[in-house]
Amino acid sequence: MNSETEDELMQATYSALCKNGYASLRMQDIADESSKSKATLHYYYDSKHELLSEFLDYLYESFAERIEADEDEAPDEQLFELIELLFERDDSDSQREFRTAILEVKAQGPYDDTYREKLEKFDRLLHDSIQAIVESGQKEGVFLTTASADDIADFVVTVINGAQTRHVSVNHDVGRTKRMLVQYITEQLLADGATEGIPG
Amino acid sequence: MNSETEDELMQATYSALCKNGYASLRMQDIADESSKSKATLHYYYDSKHELLSEFLDYLYESFAERIEADEDEAPDEQLFELIELLFERDDSDSQREFRTAILEVKAQGPYDDTYREKLEKFDRLLHDSIQAIVESGQKEGVFLTTASADDIADFVVTVINGAQTRHVSVNHDVGRTKRMLVQYITEQLLADGATEGIPG
Repeated sequence: MNSETEDELMQATYSALCKNGYASLRMQDIADESSKSKATLHYYYDSKHELLSEFLDYLYESFAERIEADEDEAPDEQLFELIELLFERDDSDSQREFRTAILEVKAQGPYDDTYREKLEKFDRLLHDSIQAIVESGQKEGVFLTTASADDIADFVVTVINGAQTRHVSVNHDVGRTKRMLVQYITEQLLADGATEGIPG
Repeated sequence: MNSETEDELMQATYSALCKNGYASLRMQDIADESSKSKATLHYYYDSKHELLSEFLDYLYESFAERIEADEDEAPDEQLFELIELLFERDDSDSQREFRTAILEVKAQGPYDDTYREKLEKFDRLLHDSIQAIVESGQKEGVFLTTASADDIADFVVTVINGAQTRHVSVNHDVGRTKRMLVQYITEQLLADGATEGIPG
């Protein structure tokens, strides 16, 4: 498959997940969002499971690009920008549908080794990115060293997971969690506890 | 239905969810865990959906009883005990299966008004219980008033949701989140920031 076709099928999978969610998704739904037939999809991918595994890899690559820190910026700026990005609001119905599909995939973790390995990669990437920023901030003296960078990163990843789950399951306002997370970082991590330059 | 039969069927639903998860659960699986036939189950409940809705109500009642605070205790003790209880470790496979089933139900929130209403009740109960404890602690001067009890409760509920989601999806250690949450409360909320009497 050339990369153009792959891109098209990955985009089609995204659109189909937004419209149908995960559980009821059929190969036909993905074909409907592309210029290819269902038979062509089956030629490239043995099963819906294989296609969705590929899709998780595709998501991972684009997530990795999106969250890459700008090394020219100060660590505190990097951290607040990452949080902005992770909590970016897009309250369109299709976005909520997509997040729901991802939560459905997360609930498959215990049953499905392939999915779980990919979910672990996402989890680790986010954790390690945050840990690296916190470590460099601690070295530069911008951040306090009362807690380890590893523990802080772990806690922040948990908060982000919680915001996503509550957003899907009870339509909770993610902006509220963002505000409390920024406050947590300001008070527990910033060496001067300064509130200037923090996104509102 | 008498309450004994109801209890039996709710226990059977719990066991069946532990064994089968949510998506693939059939009425037969629940009947298999009880002394009743599948026909009897269908006599009481029109559908699997109706039975599971009842089950969420049953869970809610038992959760409400479990988390009821001991009003004779100091608010900080009440809060730490609630966290102990919420993070109680039971790493048996069946418990993880059950939590997975609950995450599957959470992912149904956007598609299913009945489930979502019940999930909202759980979310609100936990939020309101924490808020009440924090408020009384703030009144008594045990807790700081820098953040509102409402905001703190909201943040703690998010952290708990995140711990549950990561536990299911990537087998994350919930004990780690508990430790960071206790640290958060100690440093952000306790008026004297004392570390005595805090569960380890």
